Amino acid sequence: MARSSGSNWTYASSGVDRGAISSALAALLAGIRYRAPPAAGRVLSARGHFAGLVQVGGTTLALTTDTVGTKVALAEAVGRFEEVGEDLVGVNVNDLAAVGARPVGLLDTIVCRRIDAAILRSIGRGLDRGLRRAESHLLGGETAVVGDQVAGWDLGGTAVGYFPGRRRPVLGHALRPGDHLIGLRSNGFHANGYTLVRRLLAERSVDLTAPRPGGRTAVGRELLRPTRIYSRLVDRVAGDPTLHGLAHLSGGGVRNLVRLHDARAFVLDRWPPPPGLFGWIQELGGLDDREMFQTFNMGIGFVLAVAQGTADAWITRLARAGAPDARVIGRVAKGRGVTIPDRRLNFEGYA
Amino acid sequence: MARSSGSNWTYASSGVDRGAISSALAALLAGIRYRAPPAAGRVLSARGHFAGLVQVGGTTLALTTDTVGTKVALAEAVGRFEEVGEDLVGVNVNDLAAVGARPVGLLDTIVCRRIDAAILRSIGRGLDRGLRRAESHLLGGETAVVGDQVAGWDLGGTAVGYFPGRRRPVLGHALRPGDHLIGLRSNGFHANGYTLVRRLLAERSVDLTAPRPGGRTAVGRELLRPTRIYSRLVDRVAGDPTLHGLAHLSGGGVRNLVRLHDARAFVLDRWPPPPGLFGWIQELGGLDDREMFQTFNMGIGFVLAVAQGTADAWITRLARAGAPDARVIGRVAKGRGVTIPDRRLNFEGYA
Repeated sequence: MARSSGSNWTYASSGVDRGAISSALAALLAGIRYRAPPAAGRVLSARGHFAGLVQVGGTTLALTTDTVGTKVALAEAVGRFEEVGEDLVGVNVNDLAAVGARPVGLLDTIVCRRIDAAILRSIGRGLDRGLRRAESHLLGGETAVVGDQVAGWDLGGTAVGYFPGRRRPVLGHALRPGDHLIGLRSNGFHANGYTLVRRLLAERSVDLTAPRPGGRTAVGRELLRPTRIYSRLVDRVAGDPTLHGLAHLSGGGVRNLVRLHDARAFVLDRWPPPPGLFGWIQELGGLDDREMFQTFNMGIGFVLAVAQGTADAWITRLARAGAPDARVIGRVAKGRGVTIPDRRLNFEGYA
Repeated sequence: MARSSGSNWTYASSGVDRGAISSALAALLAGIRYRAPPAAGRVLSARGHFAGLVQVGGTTLALTTDTVGTKVALAEAVGRFEEVGEDLVGVNVNDLAAVGARPVGLLDTIVCRRIDAAILRSIGRGLDRGLRRAESHLLGGETAVVGDQVAGWDLGGTAVGYFPGRRRPVLGHALRPGDHLIGLRSNGFHANGYTLVRRLLAERSVDLTAPRPGGRTAVGRELLRPTRIYSRLVDRVAGDPTLHGLAHLSGGGVRNLVRLHDARAFVLDRWPPPPGLFGWIQELGGLDDREMFQTFNMGIGFVLAVAQGTADAWITRLARAGAPDARVIGRVAKGRGVTIPDRRLNFEGYA
């Protein structure tokens, strides 16, 4: 329960240090030297991207694995698990969407201290909603009861996707200066930043059953809103050659854009005002803009980079395909990293 | 920390109640009503089997997800994580082997309270060993630092496999009375039964640094021995039409055989004497044979069911392919369930 001095919180001081995680992951990967023979499938290079790619028997698969993280502890506090069940689908299929893959389905891993049929039923209902929105299958699952190791619940999942017909993975290679960045709205915090959010709530003794100032529903419910699922929408447009890049703004916030290309700059000069929930949390923690934009999605959960001159056509097309909220939020330029000029922010790398 | 009265332990009293887990899982699955359209891939029926199957773009995939479970707590107590890293590959690829699939690779999910580079490095070395033995790729991974939710570490994974060329999934449909059951040795407890084992060790104040009676290495090290990986061996023989069924004896022990066919009996009339480790745990806990055979692998980790009259040829072939320990352990008969005649044991279902 480390806390920084004063009233300013950072994500590192709340117990999540992205730098330490990165170097520990480097240690893990350093141990893995084996390269499997081609008979096991051919791994395609997508280093640092949102999903792994492998060619197997003429089909290219996209694979990703992610957990709902500490949002589950909020679900426990509020006593509702449907939203995090839906999140489990969202956090994974959105990463498939970020390489242009069509989701096939999800395998879930539920780790808990004690089995509870009512909670599992709720999670099941949430999974159902998520699968419906993602138009994908539940392909398997595991429920591990590991008494001593966990205090509550952990929800993890792995999603499998593929590239139908002649569609190719969208990895950002085609990005060039002048491309437009189109943003799609998020549905709250999705499943990121909850270690920080929960500690702020506890520290400031926030009542989860009452609305925040300016809010309409109880804070607990508002904070549980499930991850918006972008995969069906993206699946409809992913074969278009004027689509140059895709990004899911999950953990790391706008830094996720850097994963698309290390020799392009992403200038977010038309970022829309974030919904009130973000401003409220920012004030509650005395957080600076930098911390906010690298921890939360700040109102935009998914980004499409499209060819120069095609923005209007794309906005129209996305509106027809189910995203009337699509809007230009910035552009690709020469250089590298992410900049938000009117907040004087610059992020060089992803982690 | 529930305990049954007297000195007899059961897996349920140690905190894992398979019946309660089954009914809670039924509650979860009841919530999932959505069926995805064929564009998302076609799910093949393999109900209750070791892996899910889905046809995508002309390729049939096998998918499975499993965790190392509470063996990780033993790894923490002993201070070694390489073995559980290797287990993470084994527990998953062996389930792929049990449907006759060739492993493509693994995605790992490491959930921890605090990041620790030294531990992640050890896990990485273990993963490397496992991937080497399974001849498969690391396809992705996630490390979730979820302070409040976990006390220690949880290691989960999802494995992806496929059926090369004209190979078909081996699901047990071809099983008939008279088929031989061939067993392959396990390497200790693999990754099952550790909730029970750990509580016995604590209750009886067993010194992990000293050998058990009749043992050679420290008990802690002996209990950490990694899961034997059967997938490479099985991959070499899985296309043979005289191979009628495959089973990975993981959690549930010999009950796993029931997953192959619900209208065949599995008569284990030539089960070899289990290694001393099993007898020692049985004595330590005053466990009966029934509990032992439905919790632990009892010395046999994988079973192949082969056509009547082909046993000798199969034993020779498996020996040449790297399993000189392969031996006939029983036969398929009319009826249902699993019986071990000389122990007077009968198991009707899987769970």
